Amino acid sequence: MSYVLGHNQYGKAEVHVVRVFRDDPKAPHDIVDYNVSVALTGDFDDAHITGDQAKVLTTDACKNTVNAFAKKAGDAVRQPESFGLALAEHFAQVPQVERVRVNIEAFPWQRAHNHPHAFVKNGDYVRTVTVTRTGGSSTVVSGLKDLTVLKTTDSEFHGFYQDKYTTLQPTNDRIMATAVTAQWAHDAADVDWNKSFDAVLDAITGSFSAAYSYALQHTLWEMGTAVLDAAPSVAEVRFSCPNKHHFVIDLSHFGLDNHNEVHHADDRPYGLIEATIKRSEDVDTTGAYDPGQAW
Amino acid sequence: MSYVLGHNQYGKAEVHVVRVFRDDPKAPHDIVDYNVSVALTGDFDDAHITGDQAKVLTTDACKNTVNAFAKKAGDAVRQPESFGLALAEHFAQVPQVERVRVNIEAFPWQRAHNHPHAFVKNGDYVRTVTVTRTGGSSTVVSGLKDLTVLKTTDSEFHGFYQDKYTTLQPTNDRIMATAVTAQWAHDAADVDWNKSFDAVLDAITGSFSAAYSYALQHTLWEMGTAVLDAAPSVAEVRFSCPNKHHFVIDLSHFGLDNHNEVHHADDRPYGLIEATIKRSEDVDTTGAYDPGQAW
Amino acid sequence: MSYVLGHNQYGKAEVHVVRVFRDDPKAPHDIVDYNVSVALTGDFDDAHITGDQAKVLTTDACKNTVNAFAKKAGDAVRQPESFGLALAEHFAQVPQVERVRVNIEAFPWQRAHNHPHAFVKNGDYVRTVTVTRTGGSSTVVSGLKDLTVLKTTDSEFHGFYQDKYTTLQPTNDRIMATAVTAQWAHDAADVDWNKSFDAVLDAITGSFSAAYSYALQHTLWEMGTAVLDAAPSVAEVRFSCPNKHHFVIDLSHFGLDNHNEVHHADDRPYGLIEATIKRSEDVDTTGAYDPGQAW
Amino acid sequence: MSYVLGHNQYGKAEVHVVRVFRDDPKAPHDIVDYNVSVALTGDFDDAHITGDQAKVLTTDACKNTVNAFAKKAGDAVRQPESFGLALAEHFAQVPQVERVRVNIEAFPWQRAHNHPHAFVKNGDYVRTVTVTRTGGSSTVVSGLKDLTVLKTTDSEFHGFYQDKYTTLQPTNDRIMATAVTAQWAHDAADVDWNKSFDAVLDAITGSFSAAYSYALQHTLWEMGTAVLDAAPSVAEVRFSCPNKHHFVIDLSHFGLDNHNEVHHADDRPYGLIEATIKRSEDVDTTGAYDPGQAW
Repeated sequence: MSYVLGHNQYGKAEVHVVRVFRDDPKAPHDIVDYNVSVALTGDFDDAHITGDQAKVLTTDACKNTVNAFAKKAGDAVRQPESFGLALAEHFAQVPQVERVRVNIEAFPWQRAHNHPHAFVKNGDYVRTVTVTRTGGSSTVVSGLKDLTVLKTTDSEFHGFYQDKYTTLQPTNDRIMATAVTAQWAHDAADVDWNKSFDAVLDAITGSFSAAYSYALQHTLWEMGTAVLDAAPSVAEVRFSCPNKHHFVIDLSHFGLDNHNEVHHADDRPYGLIEATIKRSEDVDTTGAYDPGQAW
Repeated sequence: MSYVLGHNQYGKAEVHVVRVFRDDPKAPHDIVDYNVSVALTGDFDDAHITGDQAKVLTTDACKNTVNAFAKKAGDAVRQPESFGLALAEHFAQVPQVERVRVNIEAFPWQRAHNHPHAFVKNGDYVRTVTVTRTGGSSTVVSGLKDLTVLKTTDSEFHGFYQDKYTTLQPTNDRIMATAVTAQWAHDAADVDWNKSFDAVLDAITGSFSAAYSYALQHTLWEMGTAVLDAAPSVAEVRFSCPNKHHFVIDLSHFGLDNHNEVHHADDRPYGLIEATIKRSEDVDTTGAYDPGQAW
Repeated sequence: MSYVLGHNQYGKAEVHVVRVFRDDPKAPHDIVDYNVSVALTGDFDDAHITGDQAKVLTTDACKNTVNAFAKKAGDAVRQPESFGLALAEHFAQVPQVERVRVNIEAFPWQRAHNHPHAFVKNGDYVRTVTVTRTGGSSTVVSGLKDLTVLKTTDSEFHGFYQDKYTTLQPTNDRIMATAVTAQWAHDAADVDWNKSFDAVLDAITGSFSAAYSYALQHTLWEMGTAVLDAAPSVAEVRFSCPNKHHFVIDLSHFGLDNHNEVHHADDRPYGLIEATIKRSEDVDTTGAYDPGQAW
Repeated sequence: MSYVLGHNQYGKAEVHVVRVFRDDPKAPHDIVDYNVSVALTGDFDDAHITGDQAKVLTTDACKNTVNAFAKKAGDAVRQPESFGLALAEHFAQVPQVERVRVNIEAFPWQRAHNHPHAFVKNGDYVRTVTVTRTGGSSTVVSGLKDLTVLKTTDSEFHGFYQDKYTTLQPTNDRIMATAVTAQWAHDAADVDWNKSFDAVLDAITGSFSAAYSYALQHTLWEMGTAVLDAAPSVAEVRFSCPNKHHFVIDLSHFGLDNHNEVHHADDRPYGLIEATIKRSEDVDTTGAYDPGQAW
């Protein structure tokens, strides 16, 4: 038996840490709510093949580190990208580690009634971050998921290719709806992350609303170019968007008109449209995305 | 074999209908997004015992009716309570039906960028309605679920009962967080439902924020009285609230203080606190709530 | 403001405890895997209204008790019903407690390769138990959920009631599929619980398979009578069964026949059929079921 | 604005088709239950940039094709790998398509009571397939997910690397549990897929049971070599396995021993261990795995 160990990685996943900022007794409290996963790659063959764990930093220590850094990393904790960068830099110092990947889900909260220490969870989307560190430098991918948008008109779909299994009727007016998953790679590491995120979010919802659509593919292109226009540090944006079909229900049997008013919101199947929009041909994001997080 | 058929009911569950209001070509579009379930009780023994379906209104017809009423019920469609009332009144006319129950989940959307026909789904909560019709009259229970709130201070827990299994340390400062499920029964059927819902939502988040807390039970009472103060048609409100524990992490091993700053947000187990607050002793809501929806 | 506190209860939910039986060094290990929830009702008004917690047994103590009893309750731990009975009896001794409810989800495991200490989780169903203790006596409700069954023929549906919203075509051959949720109340507390559960499970799958069906209602009746035949201690069984629709797909456009061969398995909406089958008219299960668990 | 469209793909996701095999009126029925997703890559720039859909095969046609092939592909439908191969070959004939990817989730069912047409869903795992076709040839990756296994002893963890955040105590006896996600790439396309799958499943559960473990990494290596031993067509196997922590509960406060008997089954965080085991160094699976399905 001469089998070979190929790519491997390990770490602690889903360390759910809530940090309260309450240093100044006169200031309102702030919070961040992060679900942090750490994955390490390096010289870990023995852990697998012989069972010798001498080089394995325990996943329990990974968890402890995330929690300790939620205090000790100071202002870097306030933005998930900077928190991820601090964690990646730390783990990269473990000698046997060659690549560090930190994935963070950041759950947004909004202040309740302008209260200094009460909050309501904002369920409109989850913010995501992937930081990858290897060879002494880090890449940052920001993102969001579960942002559900819908437009009731200004969406067409026709002129498509026909084969023997094509039965769809073309339409010049339909609901278009999707739950946006987007990830965008930065070509800088000194970004005002929260400001950049807000600009991207606004670009996505703004272009979805404003752009007349000939297909969800078309809308992805419009959203992608809007993101690149709005956020200078973004080199590339990737979208993965289900076409959440809303079917116009035939009510004629019941003597009722239905001018795109009553729709069945179907669950499955759905179209799944995925596209990358890059600032230029020579953008290279090799290794920046987490395959498990992205498409 | 002389077994007996006891309580039974049936219907179509989770008819997911999205209605667009677009009659006026100059006005912005509006939408409602409802997940409707209908359950009928009545003279359906034969359907079970002999297999004779002669009295069974098909669940497919229930679905068709929900969809047709999404057009034909007019302005009643704009609020889930009035939509549920219209549906219940219709199904009660089927001769063999003795009780109709309509449950609706209403998913809130907000206008995107003030656009006339683009929307972003508001994921902060789901609105719920239970309408029950029997004996010629209907009861209405409004509600919400998945509203997650958190306060970083002004919450204590101490002075509790001690038994041999009690090891918890008392605290005079802790995070309190919960995902509110609430249902409130109205004693009227001619309410401005959307206005009433907004008042209740505001009372819940407002009182959660403002009330100093000695336990989640205490906060439920405060929220309940605030709801009754804010919404005159509400006879009773029921809460089911998980105590979403946030544990202060001991960082002393790493040479770090932690003054209620870094918390582990735990998943399970959780406290589950449930309470009813009534306007008066003689409030009687028998049969108004759906056991499967409520606690 | 003279509002009134109505029904209330509290406790720890979802204490996920795995117990290994390994006393005998020569015997194979056994395990049970329980998710336990405890809810207490009693004299807890002050905890709500004044914030005084002097009578409140903490939910943390509830958790500790569940864990301690997983060791100390001995053989009672081996069956979820007897474990629930032991817990209920304990909590009922707290003076201010008037009613105890214990809900348990028991996850089945099967031995892997007849190995003495390796197991594979059996994902076919989850076993459930509700024990309720009040006034010095306990009631036991056993159950299961997520048991998905399907038959490819011997199922018809026709002869149903017609109204103006009825468009469904009758059929004399269709797939019938459902995910069974069932709960059955015992009129005894000294049952061989595991043997009884196995008999009920076998009765459900056996009667689903064997009984020719004229509707899901009809099949529920057949399953219910089979359960009562098979398990002498069962006084009543309740079913809540979604009709998981499998629609025959029209392939004629593609020049293909489809004699009930190719089906679309739809997600929503679904019929939801619920029925109680009792051993006799005078069965009284008042208060035995958990409204939140049952229908 | 001179932005560039990068990698893109689209198709229909989650076509849930159930096929009944009932040709022979005297034979028992068989079923397969597949959730099929198709993703196409090719010359689709115009669909994005100009909105011209002339080259776009509709996702609706993708769905129709899956359903039609569930009838017309004959015996190839009986195994998910061969069904995926047939679909990939078909879609590759669309001129503007350069790469086809077909992902299938196959849900196992077992015959109920040896009945000829009644089935119980086997919830122990989900079988998965990824077929990728490009340049005239197809690669096949088989897999499974959600297979949960646990051993109560024969598992140690000690001798690990220590840094300042390491607080974990070593152990020489612990529960080890994981939910196995595995994918294995074949270097052939004429395999007896069902027989091969059964051999791999048996190798995974068998080696998990038999192999003494010094870490989950160690167990992954053992499982991987067992898979390669058992299935000649498998060139490489990838595992992604959460370390489902079971913590021994300290019961000493309650006067109780706990010799690895009572455990808290924690939800989050969890270790996440991922490894590839290859038959030889020169195994090349470039492009065979779906990044969104794998790790």
